[in-house]
Amino acid sequence: MEFANRMNGIDSSPIRKAFELARSIQNPINLSIGQPHFPCPPNIIEAMNKAAIEGKTSYTLTAGIPELKTAMAEKYRTQNHMKYAHEDRILVTSGISSALFLLFNALVNEGDECLVISPYFLMYPAMLKFYGGKVVPLSENFTAYDVEALKNRKFKLIIFSNPSNPTGKVLSKEQLRALANLAETTGAYLISDEIYELFDYDGQFFSIGSEYEKTITLTGFSKTYNMTGLRLATILAEAGVIKALTTLQQYTVVCAPSITQWAGIEALKTDMTTYIQDYKEKRDFVYESLKDHYTIQKSGGAFYSFFQVPCEDEEFIKRAVKKDLILVPGFIFCDSKNYVRLSFATEWETLKRGMKALQELAKES
Amino acid sequence: MEFANRMNGIDSSPIRKAFELARSIQNPINLSIGQPHFPCPPNIIEAMNKAAIEGKTSYTLTAGIPELKTAMAEKYRTQNHMKYAHEDRILVTSGISSALFLLFNALVNEGDECLVISPYFLMYPAMLKFYGGKVVPLSENFTAYDVEALKNRKFKLIIFSNPSNPTGKVLSKEQLRALANLAETTGAYLISDEIYELFDYDGQFFSIGSEYEKTITLTGFSKTYNMTGLRLATILAEAGVIKALTTLQQYTVVCAPSITQWAGIEALKTDMTTYIQDYKEKRDFVYESLKDHYTIQKSGGAFYSFFQVPCEDEEFIKRAVKKDLILVPGFIFCDSKNYVRLSFATEWETLKRGMKALQELAKES
Repeated sequence: MEFANRMNGIDSSPIRKAFELARSIQNPINLSIGQPHFPCPPNIIEAMNKAAIEGKTSYTLTAGIPELKTAMAEKYRTQNHMKYAHEDRILVTSGISSALFLLFNALVNEGDECLVISPYFLMYPAMLKFYGGKVVPLSENFTAYDVEALKNRKFKLIIFSNPSNPTGKVLSKEQLRALANLAETTGAYLISDEIYELFDYDGQFFSIGSEYEKTITLTGFSKTYNMTGLRLATILAEAGVIKALTTLQQYTVVCAPSITQWAGIEALKTDMTTYIQDYKEKRDFVYESLKDHYTIQKSGGAFYSFFQVPCEDEEFIKRAVKKDLILVPGFIFCDSKNYVRLSFATEWETLKRGMKALQELAKES
Repeated sequence: MEFANRMNGIDSSPIRKAFELARSIQNPINLSIGQPHFPCPPNIIEAMNKAAIEGKTSYTLTAGIPELKTAMAEKYRTQNHMKYAHEDRILVTSGISSALFLLFNALVNEGDECLVISPYFLMYPAMLKFYGGKVVPLSENFTAYDVEALKNRKFKLIIFSNPSNPTGKVLSKEQLRALANLAETTGAYLISDEIYELFDYDGQFFSIGSEYEKTITLTGFSKTYNMTGLRLATILAEAGVIKALTTLQQYTVVCAPSITQWAGIEALKTDMTTYIQDYKEKRDFVYESLKDHYTIQKSGGAFYSFFQVPCEDEEFIKRAVKKDLILVPGFIFCDSKNYVRLSFATEWETLKRGMKALQELAKES
């Protein structure tokens, strides 16, 4: 079989491998999974089912149903303080991954340098490389001074997730402003992936799009409402970018699933505060349980902790498996082999078992 | 704004433009639309809603839920006579367009020649060119002799829709065997897009995959059950191809919509005979209404008629619009400007109005 050259170097995601490992253990402590443990709220399911019964099973407009775009524009204006947010700046996509795929397809030429804040969501470098992009990592602990030093480089785009998958880091205003300045002076596209925006435990989260209008903001429904399987996200960007991406979407997924788009409207009306509060307590519990045993920072957002382990990540993963604990090795998110990613999006009981196992592992090292 | 080079030459689909035109007319005779006029059957909606209520809103396995793959394998074996069809040869995708996107991404290198049976579904050449492929058209009326003449060419892939969008042509066994031979001798991938397989009015349809195991067969739910907005299709291919496409899907749409996959299982149990019979009568009615006025072939399948008009296609489209009739110009499907595409997937009343308008237009020319 002869595949296209771009398929070289693309490999099955190690997170998916962790999924499979978890399936082989009787009663695993699965802290590898990147999706909420709570169910999608019933009012959202009801709205979706109503749309289906009403026959909304046909193609929608490529860019999404106007009702959802209007609701999202309102959300961007009021919750994210993006005064410029209007319908013609919004594209509804089949999840964030689909949004990334459209963006990288539309933007990246062979050899283009792309600045990726590290540790990074593993899909960024994988897909950038797929389209010939060259990944330049910049540590998430960068200062404005570090960014200033890059001002004579030519980047096609700058991308980060905020709050971060895998570290839970919430970038500061100063950091975000430095990236926006760099984008403006170098002509790079600034892509802010805000899928975890509601998982912000200390009120630190800031949409850089509220200050820098050229920002390409990615907003997902999957994590906030546990709609990972329903495939829904939106892109907010300049109208010219949205027009190009919409054309490309005509030739790819055509439109986001119709009924899911109707579910999205209801989701925006749903208060998730109690769920977020629960995850905040879990965030604290993880930190308190591990801080005397590992080198660990308290996560500011998302539902991950990314901490240093006393041996190589893959060796640590193997030791953890012996205690039925499933984690994700850090090397897939950055250039280091000294970290693992833990997801605290799980039941209390599972989380407590996990902390106990991690405390034991620390003592055994 | 600076987009990637591959964005050059990709333009908004003229079919979408027809959509928009139709919206601007009070009571249009819209024969441009490529989707059934009947609703998605209620048992399918029920199955989908049940899955949603049961909480099936999370990511599924990348390749699709095992239950749907098992049901599809059974369908391929019994209805399409592909004895070799098993779960590990099946990938569930977010519609045929998504399947095409994965395939062309995974297979096509810059400069690869691709044999496309013409007239063609407009997405084939658009997406092939996007990934650097060179389109070599071959008229759908080809003979085995025509194909024999190509045996020293090097093609990366051979693709066709059978029955055809836009012509309704059902390829003969002899034609399909000739293409399979060409694929085997030249090492080309043979891609048979069978999304219209049930719209086969004279029992002529034949899955070439039943004889040639290396065929990549595309099967869609959208047209048969009016699930165009629900985004569901499957690819049947050699296990190695499925493995590569599954890896790529991890980085693109991740998985087809979860609840839609459950709907798909119910769809396979649904008898669509009366709907197909209705379309057969419409197929006959179109042919009988137009045969004395235009150069037209009776369609063998799908729900389109592709016929010659007495002036350039775009001029004819304009004249038709003056009678509130929306058609699609033929130039987007082939190298000629002498044809238009008509869809008879509509109510009888609309179809009758359309035939009357076309008869008048013929007399006025």
